[in-house]
Amino acid sequence: MRHAEKCVGVVDTTFARVDMARPAMEELEKLLPGYRIIRHTVPGIKDLPGAAKRLVDQYGCRGVITLGWVGRREADKYSYLAMSIGLIMAELLTGSILVDVTVHEDESSDPEELRRIALDRARKHARNLALMLKEGPTALSRHAGRGLRQGYPDAGPL
Amino acid sequence: MRHAEKCVGVVDTTFARVDMARPAMEELEKLLPGYRIIRHTVPGIKDLPGAAKRLVDQYGCRGVITLGWVGRREADKYSYLAMSIGLIMAELLTGSILVDVTVHEDESSDPEELRRIALDRARKHARNLALMLKEGPTALSRHAGRGLRQGYPDAGPL
Amino acid sequence: MRHAEKCVGVVDTTFARVDMARPAMEELEKLLPGYRIIRHTVPGIKDLPGAAKRLVDQYGCRGVITLGWVGRREADKYSYLAMSIGLIMAELLTGSILVDVTVHEDESSDPEELRRIALDRARKHARNLALMLKEGPTALSRHAGRGLRQGYPDAGPL
Amino acid sequence: MRHAEKCVGVVDTTFARVDMARPAMEELEKLLPGYRIIRHTVPGIKDLPGAAKRLVDQYGCRGVITLGWVGRREADKYSYLAMSIGLIMAELLTGSILVDVTVHEDESSDPEELRRIALDRARKHARNLALMLKEGPTALSRHAGRGLRQGYPDAGPL
Amino acid sequence: MRHAEKCVGVVDTTFARVDMARPAMEELEKLLPGYRIIRHTVPGIKDLPGAAKRLVDQYGCRGVITLGWVGRREADKYSYLAMSIGLIMAELLTGSILVDVTVHEDESSDPEELRRIALDRARKHARNLALMLKEGPTALSRHAGRGLRQGYPDAGPL
Repeated sequence: MRHAEKCVGVVDTTFARVDMARPAMEELEKLLPGYRIIRHTVPGIKDLPGAAKRLVDQYGCRGVITLGWVGRREADKYSYLAMSIGLIMAELLTGSILVDVTVHEDESSDPEELRRIALDRARKHARNLALMLKEGPTALSRHAGRGLRQGYPDAGPL
Repeated sequence: MRHAEKCVGVVDTTFARVDMARPAMEELEKLLPGYRIIRHTVPGIKDLPGAAKRLVDQYGCRGVITLGWVGRREADKYSYLAMSIGLIMAELLTGSILVDVTVHEDESSDPEELRRIALDRARKHARNLALMLKEGPTALSRHAGRGLRQGYPDAGPL
Repeated sequence: MRHAEKCVGVVDTTFARVDMARPAMEELEKLLPGYRIIRHTVPGIKDLPGAAKRLVDQYGCRGVITLGWVGRREADKYSYLAMSIGLIMAELLTGSILVDVTVHEDESSDPEELRRIALDRARKHARNLALMLKEGPTALSRHAGRGLRQGYPDAGPL
Repeated sequence: MRHAEKCVGVVDTTFARVDMARPAMEELEKLLPGYRIIRHTVPGIKDLPGAAKRLVDQYGCRGVITLGWVGRREADKYSYLAMSIGLIMAELLTGSILVDVTVHEDESSDPEELRRIALDRARKHARNLALMLKEGPTALSRHAGRGLRQGYPDAGPL
Repeated sequence: MRHAEKCVGVVDTTFARVDMARPAMEELEKLLPGYRIIRHTVPGIKDLPGAAKRLVDQYGCRGVITLGWVGRREADKYSYLAMSIGLIMAELLTGSILVDVTVHEDESSDPEELRRIALDRARKHARNLALMLKEGPTALSRHAGRGLRQGYPDAGPL
């Protein structure tokens, strides 16, 4: 299949408790005006790698952001690990840039703070993805080793 | 091999203590009337990824639902992790939609509740699979970030 | 290489403390009379996936049973996990049916019981493999969700 | 794509709190004068394997050094594991030499010591990479079994 | 590339605190007189799978022994797991026999005992590799299920 138009993907889940696709898509629209955005919603985090790969292989996306939400149970942690390995494999197999946003429900017991973390993380990583797609491998090099964080204040350099 | 007929797969195990294939197949029949359903039963969870991939490669299934049951021992948890990684790899290698239903025996000490969790989870994820096969990548987007759960009441959005 | 003759593989280890190949081969001979049985013995569990794949690729086996024994140390548990992931990958890469028998040395402190577990598990899973090879994907479906166990009494359905 | 010029890659992150690329690039420049150095900065450790593979596949790098920084949370440890598996897979898939530098934030509570560890480890592993690229498989054999460490004093042989 | 001469590989690390390549190479020389031995030394255990695969793909080795040493920290355990998965993947991808020797530094607090374990394990597994290369899949079958150990006294059959 030919893919004349440039495309970037957004994968989110019905499991997540915050709509992270909205800030991610806002950033991508703003920073990648020539790109079509394709969204794919799946049930949970273990469905993210396959969905990301389909967006690359079947829709021609040059980059994808995945938006995952991890529950509090031990099984959820294992699912997080499986998903992480899978996303890396998807990136190795496609050669495309896949940027992963994950919120762990136990990062905070305050729903409002959790919401703020999720939205900030999604927005900042969408920006990272857009910059790498636009400017290439050194797009983020001016921030290398600077202790940047997403969802939290930057830790800063030592 | 040609696969003129549309087909969807159901993989279950003899290890599971609830017949989850029944509700899954009921949903798939109802929502995917044009599809042939192919069932494959294997001994336990570690056999699910290989079986799912065979249903895609050898029988032409466009999507597969796997129905796993995880015991209480530490080794079972590792098996769950291996299975999860394997299912994701199968999805990456086939490009098909594989939806995973897993019940952990330690989710409840009440057999009746465990049974209810298993049946509800299988039915709801079969619905997820059918919707994605019928309506494409945005089939579930109206529920994205809404904290949906399978087997439990929805957690809801924050 | 052509493989006119039907063949099934048995992989065991020198690490194991019970000869599980004997009951496995007895069952396979009985249930798969047209098949040649090829045995491959390797040092330990991490060697099982590679050996199983060689039996498929180089000897043409249509299915393989692996017979692993896991020690009591933490490193052994990690080895179990690596082996499990590897066997699933081997199954994905070959498309053949690989059935895994694993005995964990800490399943019992009684040597006689451990021996009984190992022999029963090997025999029952050899039967599972033979049935799937002979009768196809639904060979085990009459037992699906029935809580079957190997090495222990069946847990039964809920 | 042809790659007439010899090239070596450096992948670092914005998450890291020390600029490890500087000492790594200094060493590579000194020891590999005929090589072009290509840098790629990504958000965090899970992005390292994909970036390393892109430097090999799309830029023709014959070797890559990755510079990762692992946080203190449990999720960070799982990310470290996923990244490690991914880097090994990238090395298997490319056939190129990928050398991994990882600093765990909990290696020290003293920022100055952590900084010293990071810089020393990056420099020494850049040297390892350069030597293997220049001198082949036995470049490091004179130090085999000698208990060398990076970031710490050598442990020495027993 | 053609590989007329038979070749076997030995991969060791500068991290290890015992020269395990010496006993391994002694055994291989003795038992595989027609084989050329190619050594490859890498920094640490996570470099072993890539190195083993290069010895197969680029040097034509029919089998490889890897000699790893695992530190006492939690991160070292995760590295062990990643390495184990990677070696199995390398074996699946090459179809060659890769035998893994690993010494965990916490197997003993006595340096002399640790040294003895390492040397014995390397020698015995080199023998296992040589036998499988020379005699094929059933080379070790006379010891199957006999509870053999490397580095320790045999556990024996139950």
